[in-house]
Amino acid sequence: MALFDSEDEFLSWLKNRLPEPGRKVPVGVGDDAAVLRASRWRDWLVTSDFSIEGVHFSLRWHPPKAVGHRALARSLSDIAAMGGKPRFALMSLAISKRLSRAWIEEFYDGLLSLAAHYGVAVVGGDTARVRGAAVADVTVLGEQASGQILRRSGARPGDLIFVSGRLGLGELGWRILRRQQAAMRWKLNPTDRAAALRAHLYPEPQCALGEFLARNGLASAAMDISDGLAKDLSRLAQASQVGALVEEARIPAPEFIPRDAAQRLALAGGEDYQLLFTVPPAKARRIPRAFRSATLHRIGSITGTGKLRLSRQNGKETDLEPLGYDHFRRE
Amino acid sequence: MALFDSEDEFLSWLKNRLPEPGRKVPVGVGDDAAVLRASRWRDWLVTSDFSIEGVHFSLRWHPPKAVGHRALARSLSDIAAMGGKPRFALMSLAISKRLSRAWIEEFYDGLLSLAAHYGVAVVGGDTARVRGAAVADVTVLGEQASGQILRRSGARPGDLIFVSGRLGLGELGWRILRRQQAAMRWKLNPTDRAAALRAHLYPEPQCALGEFLARNGLASAAMDISDGLAKDLSRLAQASQVGALVEEARIPAPEFIPRDAAQRLALAGGEDYQLLFTVPPAKARRIPRAFRSATLHRIGSITGTGKLRLSRQNGKETDLEPLGYDHFRRE
Repeated sequence: MALFDSEDEFLSWLKNRLPEPGRKVPVGVGDDAAVLRASRWRDWLVTSDFSIEGVHFSLRWHPPKAVGHRALARSLSDIAAMGGKPRFALMSLAISKRLSRAWIEEFYDGLLSLAAHYGVAVVGGDTARVRGAAVADVTVLGEQASGQILRRSGARPGDLIFVSGRLGLGELGWRILRRQQAAMRWKLNPTDRAAALRAHLYPEPQCALGEFLARNGLASAAMDISDGLAKDLSRLAQASQVGALVEEARIPAPEFIPRDAAQRLALAGGEDYQLLFTVPPAKARRIPRAFRSATLHRIGSITGTGKLRLSRQNGKETDLEPLGYDHFRRE
Repeated sequence: MALFDSEDEFLSWLKNRLPEPGRKVPVGVGDDAAVLRASRWRDWLVTSDFSIEGVHFSLRWHPPKAVGHRALARSLSDIAAMGGKPRFALMSLAISKRLSRAWIEEFYDGLLSLAAHYGVAVVGGDTARVRGAAVADVTVLGEQASGQILRRSGARPGDLIFVSGRLGLGELGWRILRRQQAAMRWKLNPTDRAAALRAHLYPEPQCALGEFLARNGLASAAMDISDGLAKDLSRLAQASQVGALVEEARIPAPEFIPRDAAQRLALAGGEDYQLLFTVPPAKARRIPRAFRSATLHRIGSITGTGKLRLSRQNGKETDLEPLGYDHFRRE
């Protein structure tokens, strides 16, 4: 019996079985979060994200505090992607035999610290024992003024493409954590090493940036980069029914490792939790060079071709393959 | 390393680590659902519930349609318990190797049929592969006018205790499904057998009854019966800081099996998804004998003693032990 080939295929199958989005649910399955019309003035955003032992985290490599932090960060990043302000969270944890009480306490410490930092109230959830892998599922509710929410589908030809932060750093941190041979050969200095590890273990979702873009009506489309720039840009382009041309030299890859490897990490590394957004040319001047701690980089532009292209540093143009992370396939 | 002894112990540990409920979150962890103040006029209710292979369902005994139905029913029942109208659901499914595509499709069929029946829009969720047990986590959002929500904590001495439906039927259905020897000896007729199986496989959460009680301000406290009357009544009594006296003869146990067994099922059987609620004496006359398809039974009264007591049919009074279901311990 054939299962689904990828998360995208599963989602499109599911989408076909659900009612069409309507007045009360302007955005349903398929964007970073669902949008619920709470009143004429406010929309609620809601999203759920799994963190599964052996898929999203490893008991061997990830300290429990980081597992809790990352479990919540995934959902916060979905809210950030749509320009919402995160408000409430529900935390469900299925506890396997391998978790100790100390592990559970540190897991919650990590989660609750991040929640407090973003002003999010943890209001409920569920708990149970499980045979096999431990599973956390975090639901976050956020809000934004009606009509200001950012979607994947609004990019138009001519819009400029921006990303926040430095891409590939999270994946680099993950490789360092696992002492992957290639990563060890790069002999990073302690500061760069710590930055990469921090990006992987304690990512900071770009909620303030998302809100800034939404409130000021600056972005025509946005999403978070959780599965690598190439794959996530292909999703944004597909949702907007457009193409894109990315300039390789402008992709903010880690600077302290060999250039080729850095580009690959930036394009296909998972879990950056940075924002990818498009801006109409007339508004591009209003995008600052940095927002809070994150630098903002213009990396290319939206095209009408329907194709993803990469303008390489050697002057040639090639297809940009939407390769990246798929938790659905990984096991 | 000691883990938590029970779900109740875990919840009270967690509650201590969370901020106190306040203006924006009138009810947090510990009731059936959390209450979020959306505006001066509306409250939102939100709840998450796991359905875990080997804990809440069995691939061997439960048809996938029933697994999907029950996964959503658990959360709907939490919303019913607080008098809310369920509106939106998020469905997260961690897929194990043992699930086929046909299984997943039927699972969603069961879930989406029930959602349609209750007017609930499924708006999102997450999906991933998992090593080990399959895990579903359903989040439901409901709403109700501010100040009308039912809580566990409002029961006062003298209030009458009511339950809806017939208790223990779900547990009986589960025993029949597993062909448990004792259940087989009872030789049920096909109609009773089907009713018990239906109560277990396709329970119908009492959302309309919960809304009726909330809108008309009839109940001083309410919760759903998911872990057996004895245990859930002890939780309600504890939250309200009261005691209770239950009349054994009034407990609506299944009538078609031996009386002793029926009483045990009614007191300690899990997953009835009926409502347990208390009513001030002055309002008792406004409680109908039946609401839609569910009969309503007065089974006792709230006391100021702080103890749970059972008035037996032989005229004696004994302690009512809060024994029942604990998914947390079961494995």
